[in-house]
Amino acid sequence: MGCSDADADLASKSLLSADLRGIDSHGVARLSGYVRLWEVKRINAIPAIQIVHETPSTAVVDGDAGLGLVVAPFAMQVAIDKARQVGTGWVSVKNSNHFGIAGQHAMMALEEDMIGIAMTNASALVAPTFSVEKLLGTNPIAVAIPAGNEPPFVADFATTTAANGKLEILQRKNQPTPNGWVQTKEGTPSNNANELRSGGALLPLGGDREHGSHKGYALGAIVDIFSGILSGANYGPWVPPFPAYVPMPEQMPGEGIGHFFGAMRIDAFRTAEEFKANMDNWIRRFGSAKTVEGEAKVIVPGDPEREMESERMGNGIPLQAAVLEDLLSLADKFKLQL
Amino acid sequence: MGCSDADADLASKSLLSADLRGIDSHGVARLSGYVRLWEVKRINAIPAIQIVHETPSTAVVDGDAGLGLVVAPFAMQVAIDKARQVGTGWVSVKNSNHFGIAGQHAMMALEEDMIGIAMTNASALVAPTFSVEKLLGTNPIAVAIPAGNEPPFVADFATTTAANGKLEILQRKNQPTPNGWVQTKEGTPSNNANELRSGGALLPLGGDREHGSHKGYALGAIVDIFSGILSGANYGPWVPPFPAYVPMPEQMPGEGIGHFFGAMRIDAFRTAEEFKANMDNWIRRFGSAKTVEGEAKVIVPGDPEREMESERMGNGIPLQAAVLEDLLSLADKFKLQL
Repeated sequence: MGCSDADADLASKSLLSADLRGIDSHGVARLSGYVRLWEVKRINAIPAIQIVHETPSTAVVDGDAGLGLVVAPFAMQVAIDKARQVGTGWVSVKNSNHFGIAGQHAMMALEEDMIGIAMTNASALVAPTFSVEKLLGTNPIAVAIPAGNEPPFVADFATTTAANGKLEILQRKNQPTPNGWVQTKEGTPSNNANELRSGGALLPLGGDREHGSHKGYALGAIVDIFSGILSGANYGPWVPPFPAYVPMPEQMPGEGIGHFFGAMRIDAFRTAEEFKANMDNWIRRFGSAKTVEGEAKVIVPGDPEREMESERMGNGIPLQAAVLEDLLSLADKFKLQL
Repeated sequence: MGCSDADADLASKSLLSADLRGIDSHGVARLSGYVRLWEVKRINAIPAIQIVHETPSTAVVDGDAGLGLVVAPFAMQVAIDKARQVGTGWVSVKNSNHFGIAGQHAMMALEEDMIGIAMTNASALVAPTFSVEKLLGTNPIAVAIPAGNEPPFVADFATTTAANGKLEILQRKNQPTPNGWVQTKEGTPSNNANELRSGGALLPLGGDREHGSHKGYALGAIVDIFSGILSGANYGPWVPPFPAYVPMPEQMPGEGIGHFFGAMRIDAFRTAEEFKANMDNWIRRFGSAKTVEGEAKVIVPGDPEREMESERMGNGIPLQAAVLEDLLSLADKFKLQL
């Protein structure tokens, strides 16, 4: 595509990291989608990513329509550098694209003894509580927190009941969804895993009002506003769609997709040593809690992905036939030697 | 109790604000509980609240066992002052007590053209996904975001499917809970609104794994760590209980209850004018979205509380007989003229 070697390397690592951590929907399976966005000139392979406004603890970054996989580490690094100077750093990003898995960017802070935060808005697939219309993306939040002897705490989740990837698994198995995942295009509850293809919507975490969906909706809205409105990106129903063939929304109020990153230096609050000793205590207490019958362990956020990464580093990443085909046709398109 | 006039005023306003906004569980109904905590010397009526560590954008505040209603505005003000200087301010608080409604503290930022964030940990009533044990509080998050001509966006929610106040309403009506609100002391699903009295637990937002409870659990955990571990307060199952008659946990790792506050100056990112114009656009678009049948409006976070406040400012705050009796017996105890 003409990316610099450094950018190509960064983006590849990001996609492979998603696959290693078991988030197959955000790994190399996405590569052809990025290429298609580049073909329709919505992704700029040689962006001039820059800070357009800043204070000692904040910045707005213009991604110049670059790959989100490249824009996000730039912006997270700005947040980390500011945290080194004044304790915390907060960066809102406009004019970007899909940035892969949020957790990976948040985790950049860990080796600096900082807490890392990453979030992004995304094209509207989610109907707020009581809404028929899709107005929010799956808008994930990731928070990575260092520990001492224990592995870090890494939460990374969509603000919907279920992420799109979970729906795709059910689609392949031809199975219905649990309640509270999707609604029809009329806004009635549904258990059809293919509902989005008929104009239906994903539902905010909680599913419906009675089960707290107004909280999932509020969370998704906060991610949207921090990512889109603080930066000058698009937001709500105006966020550009990922598939290159989907027409862009009309009357877009901003530039590209928005992200939001934060870094907080642990020792801006208390010594890293004390903090980590208490994090170890937290993790051990939660990880050893008495479980409900039939469950082996109370999971500490980050455990499943780390275990998957360790397994796949040894045994490799299993690719679905369709993904492999997709990659081979990309290799052909770019005349790569395999 | 011996509070200074200024502190008594601040605390009273905070309780009344909760009642005005319709969050009756956090209003004057709590007053006798605070008094009982003062009687057992767990609340210090004349605290020397102070900053014990700081950087340009962060601080740790020691609440000196004061009323959370008084400690929280102090800490939020520190966050606001730091945001004025360096763009954002982030304050973690230890050695505090129950702080009332989170939203009220977050809203202090609004008049400064800042985004306000407030959260707190609380005594353990919530079982994480797969856990029989109660390890987290209802750990609320509030985010207040200024708009222009529209009223502000104010989200304020417990990270559980339902807050304790919702359970109490069902208890009074002798009605069952929806699925996903509570579990029994063995960790099996329950619809008994009195389940907590039999050793059961509240459930994280999502209710169970299939409906995303691991996300509600992660959110509650993040609130716990930002509030308790960053500051040196207690966390997880060691957070002190609100009722004065409940014994304190053993081997407590920190001091009191923890809170976390943030303030972000809008113009540390872009001009407040541009930001507010886009917030108005966001609010109008969401507030006018097509609704599912039977619902009048897609709610923008903060709408119901603001409408309630406006109604109660006109018509007064209806008090339950039990609350009124409670207040009268307090008046008697402190020999107040009515």
